[in-house]
Amino acid sequence: MTQLRNDTFLRALMRQPTEYTPLWLMRQAGRYLPEYCATRKRAGSFLQLCKSPTMACEVTLQPLERYDLDAAILFSDILTVPDAMGLGLYFAEGEGPKFERPLKDAADIAKLAVPDPHGELQYVMDAVSEIRRALDGRVPLIGFSGSPWTLSCYMVEGGSSSDYRKVKSLMYSQPEQMHRILEVTAQSVIAYLNAQIEAGAQAVMVFDSWGGVLSHNAYREFSLRYLQQIAAGLIRERDGRQVPCIVFTKGGGLWLDDIANAGYDAVGLDWTMDIGTARALVGDRVALQGNLDPAVLFGTPEAVAEEARRVLDSFGNHPGHVFNLGHGISQFTPPENVSVLVDTVHAHSRTIRGGA
Amino acid sequence: MTQLRNDTFLRALMRQPTEYTPLWLMRQAGRYLPEYCATRKRAGSFLQLCKSPTMACEVTLQPLERYDLDAAILFSDILTVPDAMGLGLYFAEGEGPKFERPLKDAADIAKLAVPDPHGELQYVMDAVSEIRRALDGRVPLIGFSGSPWTLSCYMVEGGSSSDYRKVKSLMYSQPEQMHRILEVTAQSVIAYLNAQIEAGAQAVMVFDSWGGVLSHNAYREFSLRYLQQIAAGLIRERDGRQVPCIVFTKGGGLWLDDIANAGYDAVGLDWTMDIGTARALVGDRVALQGNLDPAVLFGTPEAVAEEARRVLDSFGNHPGHVFNLGHGISQFTPPENVSVLVDTVHAHSRTIRGGA
Repeated sequence: MTQLRNDTFLRALMRQPTEYTPLWLMRQAGRYLPEYCATRKRAGSFLQLCKSPTMACEVTLQPLERYDLDAAILFSDILTVPDAMGLGLYFAEGEGPKFERPLKDAADIAKLAVPDPHGELQYVMDAVSEIRRALDGRVPLIGFSGSPWTLSCYMVEGGSSSDYRKVKSLMYSQPEQMHRILEVTAQSVIAYLNAQIEAGAQAVMVFDSWGGVLSHNAYREFSLRYLQQIAAGLIRERDGRQVPCIVFTKGGGLWLDDIANAGYDAVGLDWTMDIGTARALVGDRVALQGNLDPAVLFGTPEAVAEEARRVLDSFGNHPGHVFNLGHGISQFTPPENVSVLVDTVHAHSRTIRGGA
Repeated sequence: MTQLRNDTFLRALMRQPTEYTPLWLMRQAGRYLPEYCATRKRAGSFLQLCKSPTMACEVTLQPLERYDLDAAILFSDILTVPDAMGLGLYFAEGEGPKFERPLKDAADIAKLAVPDPHGELQYVMDAVSEIRRALDGRVPLIGFSGSPWTLSCYMVEGGSSSDYRKVKSLMYSQPEQMHRILEVTAQSVIAYLNAQIEAGAQAVMVFDSWGGVLSHNAYREFSLRYLQQIAAGLIRERDGRQVPCIVFTKGGGLWLDDIANAGYDAVGLDWTMDIGTARALVGDRVALQGNLDPAVLFGTPEAVAEEARRVLDSFGNHPGHVFNLGHGISQFTPPENVSVLVDTVHAHSRTIRGGA
């Protein structure tokens, strides 16, 4: 493999000193970029774009051409795993992801099995290998998966939900059925992420996008427990280098202390928690990734720079920070504000280090 | 005025000892009750139901006929205030509330003025008086309003939003315009709640339903600051009795310490925070109201009872707890599960007090 020329992101995740704070943006290859929209149009649909390793590679690299980002992230969808389990993923125009065959009863749940990452999911591994070759050592490549709880929400609801009525009904009326779904899904995520690491992913992230809708107790029983299983099952070293893993529960700020003990190297934070407070709480257990409100990018360039500096100042001059948004970048983001953000984070974090 | 026969709710809000933990449920007069649906059908629309004092009184009392609840809450909508400001509230079928004339520019914002509670909003005061007479001292009546931030979200977005793009764009590009909206709205809320108290409301609650979408810093500047203004402007005693006030920021658990200092008697909690941890944090500053996940009511009766006991046990044998859900009750709730909840809360809290 080619030598990695910018390993700032990987070092920050392992809480090693870096010259500046590395950054990448969740959903950085996305609809706010005209070049992404052009490739997506050519692909025909979002799902065809995900399933073509060549086009997935193309869009993964697009934001790196525009901005001085410190990591690339595999272009894919969190729902590839349940799709490979046979649930039939599709995207209804303007409605988000849906499943043709959601889990409706105990028979559906009994049939669930761990998909072979080199079977139905081989297209993901091919994309990882192709992107890794195309990056040619420029920045590290992040692989990812949805969390068991988040995937299960979609698998039971059949799509997005405003109240999680079906999945919470199952959870509070047949918890053993809920655990069976989560168990199979957790094993699937472990196999899927390890296959991505073997194909070339240099860090992995688990997106627990819907963990925050659970109660304090239910989060521990139905989400965190399976996140811990995953951390314990992941490949942690490859080609003589550590493969850091990141967990992100959106809306999980109140549970940060327990999340920091779940076995990951880094924890993602949304924008509701002050990152300096979070750093003090986690101490030297984990690195932190975050945590600008993506809506700041709708503001003036001055507001973007000011809010970015505020996050960096709050974290302070310590190792272990990867700058990011607290959620995926919006399709309505002006691309020029992203330039302001990237430049501010790099410049201001160098100043903080110099001033210490 | 008739003597109040059950003041358990008011005493708990003031952190005085009670024989059991009082409870009421957010949106307790709602679509899960067939008798509510019948009245709403007769009214023609949700808004006509809100604007008819007689029918608003009728539905306010319905849940008290079925369940042994310890408080009644005015049947109304949080958006009556901006409606009275001239924005034109309407409800599109299946889409939630909308405004015909949302705030689009500086000229719209400059025109905003505090509405007279005895002008366009007299129908609310009439409903309060009529409900108070009909209750005849049975339980206390709660008045309420939306928070300045939450009302402003609807006023700028023109309806519900998934990303709050318009209002956050305004906030991060023209903060002075945002503050002007919030300032007028805060003054309006004070006048509106004080008029409800004068008309007979025995406690008031401010619903900051969308405060949780803000960043740590923005919450303090654009929501909490105006919640503090309101607390400072409210009538706190009427007819020789304290009028307790409650504030509820959904998703505000991380900010509980600051919210507890905002000047309210009680703080509402959603289900993401353990209520025992919350109690330890707020100490003797405020009472707490909450915090069962409304989705628990989709579970078995056994699960409902177990989860309710868990909340009560976590709070422990201390004064200052009003049991509630962490969000409005769902229209899909089986009414018989609400009986289980009410009975469990009353019985188990008596056991806790007895056992101490």
